[in-house]
Amino acid sequence: MSKVPVMEIFGPTIQGEGMVIGQKTMFVRTAGCDYSCAWCDSAFTWDGSGKGLIKQMQAEEIWQELVQLGGDGFSHVTLSGGNPALLKNLSHLVDFLKEKEIKIGLETQGSKWQDWFVDIDELTISPKPPSSKMNTDFDILDSIMQRLRDANQSNHISIKVVVFSDEDYDYAKKVHLRYSDIPFFLQVGNEDNKTTDNTQLVEQLLTKYEWLIDKTMLDHEFKNVKVLPQLHTYIWGNKRGV
Amino acid sequence: MSKVPVMEIFGPTIQGEGMVIGQKTMFVRTAGCDYSCAWCDSAFTWDGSGKGLIKQMQAEEIWQELVQLGGDGFSHVTLSGGNPALLKNLSHLVDFLKEKEIKIGLETQGSKWQDWFVDIDELTISPKPPSSKMNTDFDILDSIMQRLRDANQSNHISIKVVVFSDEDYDYAKKVHLRYSDIPFFLQVGNEDNKTTDNTQLVEQLLTKYEWLIDKTMLDHEFKNVKVLPQLHTYIWGNKRGV
Ligand code: SF4
Ligand code: SF4
Repeated sequence: MSKVPVMEIFGPTIQGEGMVIGQKTMFVRTAGCDYSCAWCDSAFTWDGSGKGLIKQMQAEEIWQELVQLGGDGFSHVTLSGGNPALLKNLSHLVDFLKEKEIKIGLETQGSKWQDWFVDIDELTISPKPPSSKMNTDFDILDSIMQRLRDANQSNHISIKVVVFSDEDYDYAKKVHLRYSDIPFFLQVGNEDNKTTDNTQLVEQLLTKYEWLIDKTMLDHEFKNVKVLPQLHTYIWGNKRGV
Repeated sequence: MSKVPVMEIFGPTIQGEGMVIGQKTMFVRTAGCDYSCAWCDSAFTWDGSGKGLIKQMQAEEIWQELVQLGGDGFSHVTLSGGNPALLKNLSHLVDFLKEKEIKIGLETQGSKWQDWFVDIDELTISPKPPSSKMNTDFDILDSIMQRLRDANQSNHISIKVVVFSDEDYDYAKKVHLRYSDIPFFLQVGNEDNKTTDNTQLVEQLLTKYEWLIDKTMLDHEFKNVKVLPQLHTYIWGNKRGV
């Protein structure tokens, strides 16, 4: 069977994070994750609370829903989760989208390899820092990075680490120095992913963003790095599906 | 003589705009512009008010000041203006930085070609929309884009248009459709580049950003586009030299 569990499909909207920040894109969010990060902002994909939303879908069905929402006004699709890298079958959707000349972005924590990674146009590997309470398996991560290098994908990949604390920052630096040939993004963590008070949230996020910038600018070990916020939270706060 | 008129040198800080948004970088701002945009946020580079700041500097002197500020903690320099493309002599600085293995970003409105454009790692061509009160010479712009394509630079260039109004948006679309093979960025205009009330400024900029996103998402002629704010104004408001 070539179906995958889909949690939600939405867009067109902008990609708020990382290497394709600002990009007009559609989103396909898959269900299921092998992690359970303390601050996960899409826990409904794996904690049971969104169980009723899951639909098992073929590539063609997903495409139909994308077109229904976005018409012919998009050329980019972001595959998100959960951890989409759990799904071997996602290869069908990847192939399907490539045939339609759609560019594909994908983010995964780097806990699992899939052969279809090499067909992703913008692949973000986002290992999780200590505050997530998850442990990075660096043997697996090393092997994923090496396979991507071997596939000559280094133009199409980046590493992104979300930073909440000084400890997270140190972890991020360790990751950067370990894979220093790969474009690296620091991202401000959202400490309050439940609040609906957007004005206060933006203020808080900007304070934290300035803290992260200041720290990075003073740090001579971080040279080639981009420091970014989650743009979508500035606009839509913690609202889902925008 | 190989000197260029320098207005200010600062950093390390982040690039707040466009194709290298978030990048840790040093800034070198040159003096002089052939335009006089209605909403120019660096009018002091050309309206006489910053005359006393101008220093005629050799590449080596500029480098010394960069190192004094940034030590060995940077690998990226942004050349900004004014319009740095007025300066044939900037080739010396470009060569010098390349020798030091520093990546170079540069922005210009696309009113003038320089041979050293092909040595820029990230070149942003930013034609000015109607609200600027400037007129785009599309013959010159066509020839610049063609020379960059011929030099096989298309991976290293982007077009960015700042949008304040519906009219600007239509202009932006016209530019995008004319050079549809070049990565394209829409940027929210800052309508109040004098205020020191940062909270109000951020609120205003976010409202405008949402407006621009909504418009672009509904527009089927804008497919492959990135919509971005000026990040630095979110953090530092209209402050100069950060
Ligand atoms: S890896 Fe991502 S989806 Fe999975 S728990 Fe962590 S933050 Fe959530
Ligand atoms: S081209 Fe740039 S520097 Fe020159 S006047 Fe316009 S905004 Fe100002």
